[in-house]
Amino acid sequence: MVTTPRGAHSWHPRRLRDLLRVAIADRQELDGRIPSESELMAEFGASRTAVREGLSILVNEGQIERRRGQGTSRIASYVRFDQTIPHTEPQRRIYDEIISRMAPEIIHSGWTPVPPPIVRRLSGAAAGDQCLAVEYVFRLDGIPLAVITNYLRRTEAEKLEGRALRSDYYSHLRDAGIEIENQASFYQARHADRLTAEILNIGEGDPVLAFEQEIDDASGDVINVAFGTIHSDVRITSGLLPERRSGRS
Amino acid sequence: MVTTPRGAHSWHPRRLRDLLRVAIADRQELDGRIPSESELMAEFGASRTAVREGLSILVNEGQIERRRGQGTSRIASYVRFDQTIPHTEPQRRIYDEIISRMAPEIIHSGWTPVPPPIVRRLSGAAAGDQCLAVEYVFRLDGIPLAVITNYLRRTEAEKLEGRALRSDYYSHLRDAGIEIENQASFYQARHADRLTAEILNIGEGDPVLAFEQEIDDASGDVINVAFGTIHSDVRITSGLLPERRSGRS
Repeated sequence: MVTTPRGAHSWHPRRLRDLLRVAIADRQELDGRIPSESELMAEFGASRTAVREGLSILVNEGQIERRRGQGTSRIASYVRFDQTIPHTEPQRRIYDEIISRMAPEIIHSGWTPVPPPIVRRLSGAAAGDQCLAVEYVFRLDGIPLAVITNYLRRTEAEKLEGRALRSDYYSHLRDAGIEIENQASFYQARHADRLTAEILNIGEGDPVLAFEQEIDDASGDVINVAFGTIHSDVRITSGLLPERRSGRS
Repeated sequence: MVTTPRGAHSWHPRRLRDLLRVAIADRQELDGRIPSESELMAEFGASRTAVREGLSILVNEGQIERRRGQGTSRIASYVRFDQTIPHTEPQRRIYDEIISRMAPEIIHSGWTPVPPPIVRRLSGAAAGDQCLAVEYVFRLDGIPLAVITNYLRRTEAEKLEGRALRSDYYSHLRDAGIEIENQASFYQARHADRLTAEILNIGEGDPVLAFEQEIDDASGDVINVAFGTIHSDVRITSGLLPERRSGRS
């Protein structure tokens, strides 16, 4: 392994880019301000050239906008959303805080024969069974951030009859007495297709975060399969948010 | 809630797109084949028009390629990688299988003063402390799939002195006697910047999955902070892969 002597350091533009991004996000979270070029130079002990090169990569990535003489004028909003199903009181508090700003807008809800790939994923489902398909747009402070389709197993879906989706899907299930325990999600970056771009109010071809999710009950049965497409302003995690982990020093 | 009668179902192109994608991926995983338009029509009981419209969305998203008269000729490889730190034997077996196909190529390795945003994340780190920066390209079967930079706390980094990164980073830490217990990752879709696009052999502006990760030891201390950019052919999860969950029926 190549090691450089302690004390020496240089700022490679790609590595500095990563650090500038989180430094800007940290500062925004702290007091809503975006640090100036000079502040970033001082914070990192880096040259103006290095900072500008790092910031220009962030512009290319669509993370910030910069205008000559006006500094950094916009940064991706970095909404944080944790897909972990909340169980403890501190987890619920953090989850509820974000959920309180959220409103779902139903696009489609209806019984459907379980589609073939969903038959392979829902526990105990057979071809010809019915499941409930629920597709909605997730709005945060009114801004469309994700479009999600859920396929819920019949046994559980029957408990939902007559109930409207008013806040988040996890609470929707739990309020109907449906037990949910764990979830696992796959994430992948994709181009936004035209229909999704229209819903999320972004450009066709813009990067979006797509996920596939399975939700289990306590016995490990998969009771719900979901597909979602998320706006690139959102940072999502399916692990525990650092703030809510126990034992953090 | 609007519900359609049982038995009735229609294929909205956006929802059918999600299902076609996983149906194609399932079939690829099963026998390496890509199902034809007619096979998909039969599987879903859908019209040729509906299947074609769903497939055309997958083309727009960069998930598949189609040529007239030749059917679907390519699909995103859907490499599955689980960022969960393996603990049990079944977890290790699945992890080791993917790791056996992987080779890291070091871009940079060296001591550096802990960068300011990393000071705020590494447990017990103070401004002026040193940490070990390790940047590498993750290749699977020779194909570059991710570029990742790690910042490792000094106490742990000193145990790595003289050791080369030969396979995966988790094993690299554990082989040096460094205890790792949990990780949490944020995911976000972004445009690939030019430098990253060159490393990953993709187009500038193509969608990439970016992550930020914190790795803890058993006491909950954050000992490592990482930033990574992942090729859009990869599906990544930080939860447990369905296959390895216990209790799955």
